[in-house]
Amino acid sequence: MVKEKRHEELSKLRDEIRNVTLDIIDKVHKRMELSERIGTIKGNLNIEIEDEKVEQEVRGSVTELSHKLGIDPAFSGRLLNIMLMESIRLQQIQQKKPESTPSEYTHLSVFSKAKELESSGKKIIHLEVGEPDYPPPRMIKKALIESYNKKLYHYTDSRGLPKLRQAIAKKVGNGITHDEVIVTSGGRFAIFSAILSILKPGEEVISIDPAWPAYREFVDFAGGKIKTLETTLEEKWTPDIRQLEAMISEHTKVIILNYPNNPTGKVLDEKYITKIISLAKDNGLYMISDEVYSDYAFKRFTSLTHYKYDKSIVVSSFSKSCAMTGFRVGYGIAKKEIIDKMARVQAIALTSVAEPMQHAALSAIDYNPAGNVKLIKERLDLISEKLCNMSFDFITPEGAMYVYPRLRGLIQNDVILVEKLLNLGVAVAPGSGFGENYKQFMRISACQPKKLLERGLEVIKSIMLKH
Amino acid sequence: MVKEKRHEELSKLRDEIRNVTLDIIDKVHKRMELSERIGTIKGNLNIEIEDEKVEQEVRGSVTELSHKLGIDPAFSGRLLNIMLMESIRLQQIQQKKPESTPSEYTHLSVFSKAKELESSGKKIIHLEVGEPDYPPPRMIKKALIESYNKKLYHYTDSRGLPKLRQAIAKKVGNGITHDEVIVTSGGRFAIFSAILSILKPGEEVISIDPAWPAYREFVDFAGGKIKTLETTLEEKWTPDIRQLEAMISEHTKVIILNYPNNPTGKVLDEKYITKIISLAKDNGLYMISDEVYSDYAFKRFTSLTHYKYDKSIVVSSFSKSCAMTGFRVGYGIAKKEIIDKMARVQAIALTSVAEPMQHAALSAIDYNPAGNVKLIKERLDLISEKLCNMSFDFITPEGAMYVYPRLRGLIQNDVILVEKLLNLGVAVAPGSGFGENYKQFMRISACQPKKLLERGLEVIKSIMLKH
Repeated sequence: MVKEKRHEELSKLRDEIRNVTLDIIDKVHKRMELSERIGTIKGNLNIEIEDEKVEQEVRGSVTELSHKLGIDPAFSGRLLNIMLMESIRLQQIQQKKPESTPSEYTHLSVFSKAKELESSGKKIIHLEVGEPDYPPPRMIKKALIESYNKKLYHYTDSRGLPKLRQAIAKKVGNGITHDEVIVTSGGRFAIFSAILSILKPGEEVISIDPAWPAYREFVDFAGGKIKTLETTLEEKWTPDIRQLEAMISEHTKVIILNYPNNPTGKVLDEKYITKIISLAKDNGLYMISDEVYSDYAFKRFTSLTHYKYDKSIVVSSFSKSCAMTGFRVGYGIAKKEIIDKMARVQAIALTSVAEPMQHAALSAIDYNPAGNVKLIKERLDLISEKLCNMSFDFITPEGAMYVYPRLRGLIQNDVILVEKLLNLGVAVAPGSGFGENYKQFMRISACQPKKLLERGLEVIKSIMLKH
Repeated sequence: MVKEKRHEELSKLRDEIRNVTLDIIDKVHKRMELSERIGTIKGNLNIEIEDEKVEQEVRGSVTELSHKLGIDPAFSGRLLNIMLMESIRLQQIQQKKPESTPSEYTHLSVFSKAKELESSGKKIIHLEVGEPDYPPPRMIKKALIESYNKKLYHYTDSRGLPKLRQAIAKKVGNGITHDEVIVTSGGRFAIFSAILSILKPGEEVISIDPAWPAYREFVDFAGGKIKTLETTLEEKWTPDIRQLEAMISEHTKVIILNYPNNPTGKVLDEKYITKIISLAKDNGLYMISDEVYSDYAFKRFTSLTHYKYDKSIVVSSFSKSCAMTGFRVGYGIAKKEIIDKMARVQAIALTSVAEPMQHAALSAIDYNPAGNVKLIKERLDLISEKLCNMSFDFITPEGAMYVYPRLRGLIQNDVILVEKLLNLGVAVAPGSGFGENYKQFMRISACQPKKLLERGLEVIKSIMLKH
């Protein structure tokens, strides 16, 4: 009897839940109608479709109500996000605007175009790529042969070979243990897996523009939202800490730093890093520090590992220091709990980094990059010297492999300039590939021999003289 | 004036939209309360939390209403899915059940435990791993040395080296061009990137159990829903096509096939494949065919590429055929539009597969695996013969590297059996790692020399005699 009654009640509750569900969909429809009307008015008033402030207000109200009702705010946040994204999509269709994508014209697309031109017989000087032109350490050859002879070509732990993790921990120092190290498929996968481990859809990541475009890609991929703090040449690419503070909302989860910086060559002073860490601490934020250029620092640079912030993820790789780009070996340093999550992402996506490549990296662990660093520094000095005599403003790079000059004068669109240069046989990276508000900039890479650099800069000079 | 009025209206509409949004959250809360009450009753009645039929009814109603209101049913479906997943989560917490994760005790965890035991001095016979014990082709050594000597260690196209893609296209045949090939970090990344390219959160993938646990992981990772069609030993692991048809909803996007099958060794007859393709065609579904064991087919096997279904993604790799697991090179075959999307995922996650590994794969492209296949077949025959004399039921493998026997009799829990065997020095994979309803099964791998296989099977026999 009791059982029968329960079944009856179950059936009644199911009817109720269906009705509530349909009621929700009905309200969602109403919401979308309102959103369309708002879109029309915005179109007439020529206002941007996305309005951060209004969005944050709605988010705030939803969170407040969720707390009051005892709903998990992460859950209601996800629901809200899906609705907001759909609203934006509908408004965009209405205004016939393309979906908001970042500049598609980056150093990579220039590289592809340059390759096309080359295959049709044109000679191109490659000042657009961030790939060293010098060879990797010699011991790698032996390591490759040994990996075959010793049958070291199997699945490994998703976190990487214990030996390699220990060697990286030792090299990084600052009390790091091998438990706090993951070997990844390039520094790229370390950041990718960190963001996918941390971020839930709708949550926010702050990065500092101009920046490597991949940060935005990772966050988009995770269904999150990137917010960019813009820095300026006038302020010598120093981020405004107060502005940074104002950008942090309760949805913010991560701040990404990248020093020595690609593309500006900036190395941020310790006092700013300290302030940013303190902001992160106060707001419970993760910090991802992309330090792949750390060997190429021409002034004092301190790794984030030094600060012992427990929500930090420090990323580096063998690609730039050891000129091992194509081996795809990088690593992440973080507390074990975070490493375990990143390893889970790597295990799902690709099991582990190829074992022979891990042995190649292990053989290069004690490699001294001083010669490479000296070479890049000399080339950067050469580029800087040449640019001084043209209509460019820039800071002399304090690190990394690039100069990021801004053109004085008429050309307001980097893409036009880049295209012109490409037709003259010189590939440079458009400034806007690193942030939409840097259309007057270009990135010149020091990954070519001096002779080619000189020749490339002559071409740049010739085009400048015409303006 | 008009402008002012518009601003006024905008502000009014924004108030309205906020109220509707809060109203939605309020209703969602109500929905959750109802769901909790349902959970309590289900707990009392001892009914399963997930009820596919009831769920489908609600889905149907929501879709119908969406069509009526002119809402994108994909969008409302995503909203519904998030609510359903939250309901299930809450009901599970309420009933104090662990979250519905697949069995955490898989062949990989047995492998880890076995490694631990080994490091404490115990000898273990590894019948749990799917990693060939024979070496990769010899030409690989030369390819590794050459990749160093010829400086072939740079970033490559995200789709892989053109030469390798051409060679794969040629090998696959069936009119495939290199545009339809992507080289990935193992067959794993090919499926991972395919699912992430195709699936939106809340959308469904059908896979056929028992199955490699990774399929579920990929779908979970993409925020989708996996639905499993269970097959049985009685039906010789042949999927019931009518049952499959009944599982397809308007949220279904993909069917995953894996023949020769891991773990059962099944090779599905062409007539069934044809029926499944026809179902996929009728419903506009993608088909992912995981064919990493295709060389190890002991009866006629036809690749899905042969059927020229335009929404198919065929995955294979060098790992099993060439015993190149640790090189992490696999590939996907699909229409160019799909390949481009998969390449985008690979570009974001890891730029490209390590170039030296791609050259290693290229050198092995014409390798004849007949010797390996013969060896595995002989071992599988040996295992089958021995198992015949114990209390096991199974089909003789038609392909792949495993036997998947079911124990007749008392042990209803594979984990207990697996633990016992492990303590006796034999590691096998628990059957439930491949699907929760296969607790009476275990997977025995043929990746060990015959002597060890025999010894391992003796231990299994000894434990069987005690039951």
